[in-house]
Amino acid sequence: VRVRYLIGQDATIEVGDRGLAYGDGLFETMAVRHGRIERFELHRERLRLGSDRLGLPLPDADELEQRLAAAAAEFDLGFVKLTVTRGQGPRGYAPPDDPVPNVIINAGMRQPAPTRALRVVTLEQRLGENPKLAGIKHLCRLEQVLGQLELKSLAADEGLMLSMSGAVIGGTSRNVFAVFGSRLVTPDLSQAGIRGVMREAVLHECEQRRVAVDERALTLDDLQQADEMFMTNALVGIQSVECLDERALPSRDLAARLRDALGLIDG
Amino acid sequence: VRVRYLIGQDATIEVGDRGLAYGDGLFETMAVRHGRIERFELHRERLRLGSDRLGLPLPDADELEQRLAAAAAEFDLGFVKLTVTRGQGPRGYAPPDDPVPNVIINAGMRQPAPTRALRVVTLEQRLGENPKLAGIKHLCRLEQVLGQLELKSLAADEGLMLSMSGAVIGGTSRNVFAVFGSRLVTPDLSQAGIRGVMREAVLHECEQRRVAVDERALTLDDLQQADEMFMTNALVGIQSVECLDERALPSRDLAARLRDALGLIDG
Repeated sequence: VRVRYLIGQDATIEVGDRGLAYGDGLFETMAVRHGRIERFELHRERLRLGSDRLGLPLPDADELEQRLAAAAAEFDLGFVKLTVTRGQGPRGYAPPDDPVPNVIINAGMRQPAPTRALRVVTLEQRLGENPKLAGIKHLCRLEQVLGQLELKSLAADEGLMLSMSGAVIGGTSRNVFAVFGSRLVTPDLSQAGIRGVMREAVLHECEQRRVAVDERALTLDDLQQADEMFMTNALVGIQSVECLDERALPSRDLAARLRDALGLIDG
Repeated sequence: VRVRYLIGQDATIEVGDRGLAYGDGLFETMAVRHGRIERFELHRERLRLGSDRLGLPLPDADELEQRLAAAAAEFDLGFVKLTVTRGQGPRGYAPPDDPVPNVIINAGMRQPAPTRALRVVTLEQRLGENPKLAGIKHLCRLEQVLGQLELKSLAADEGLMLSMSGAVIGGTSRNVFAVFGSRLVTPDLSQAGIRGVMREAVLHECEQRRVAVDERALTLDDLQQADEMFMTNALVGIQSVECLDERALPSRDLAARLRDALGLIDG
């Protein structure tokens, strides 16, 4: 596959790029620690899922991995962001038959994630449902942007977003888990939401430890019965939820154990 | 409002632009005829609606209009595309408090729209519902891109798209109207779809001529009873539908009358 690489924060892209015009592309934001990308294989897996769904060709895997590793190498605690768009195209929604994807890589430092628990509020802004787009990290993220706009006026760290049909999906930029007795539950993401890399890492870890996790539909009413809640994100790791709306959630046990198990030091 | 203008097909934009990163912006594609933008006030109206919904500041109206007019001036039959993004921002979905929008203008020639009627097929690809995003022309258009990808393998000119809950919304890049006896119906777009400028022009024209138009939920079953169907788009005007899936639609009457009334010569 022929692609064009654009490296660094100062890179520029033609205004005819389909990522800009239509959100026609994918991205990954990866945590860097001691110069290496963390959980790269999970990012690659999600990227491939997105590529399949959108019919978007990906660059040669070896070259891509080398370039990402090079971008990561200079940061002790940082991030690498990868964006793959369907490149330039003629006007109109129809993709070109032989797209030349633009592959954008930039990297930077990051701060350690705050260790205190999150205050979470349920947002009015909802997430549209579409099984073809659910789970993947495509570039059409206006619903999350509107969620963050709503959150600005609220005294909270993160907003909980429901799907149009009322299912709990996750935070604006985090996945959510809830503990009910000995059961761990995380929302089914077949209709909306993003399959976060830290969510996948938690699911793998639980599988290895034979901790049962249900991926299922979850309502706000269900969450009223939760003993513990935590949220996940590739950059901030696993964060306990201190309160959801008016309700306090004192337990931190499973989140703490999973953080230990996954070697998450900085949040 | 401070903005940055980017003019012409060869303009480039920083890869950190929020339009590229998140689809955080709006666009308008406007028909040009004899050096002037057609139905500019309807484009401006939709842009304002989008600006209100997204909390996205627009450039000074007079300067914008002058620049668009200048871009249009050299084309006898052409288009002007305007894109307004929320500009550069820090990483993350939260918009900056004082964004400096990027305002991208480019223009080109266009071919006269083909005058023959459209063969339309119903697509499997559906449209997610979200009242906050419905109607406006934001940059998150992956559903239309996937619709066009599906259409590529089908012997048809346009694809009809339903919402997730099964309501007929429109084509991948056209609005749809159906005639039932003396009633004209077009889908309610409060949950999905785009309020097309030619759709608005048809609604205005019908209002002036006291032709009743219902904007309401429309199903595929309803369309089985239609006497006539046509589709609209700012660039191609009003196009009759020759067949929907297997069903032929012989009537062209109302579409022809509306084309005359609206002075649509080239399609």
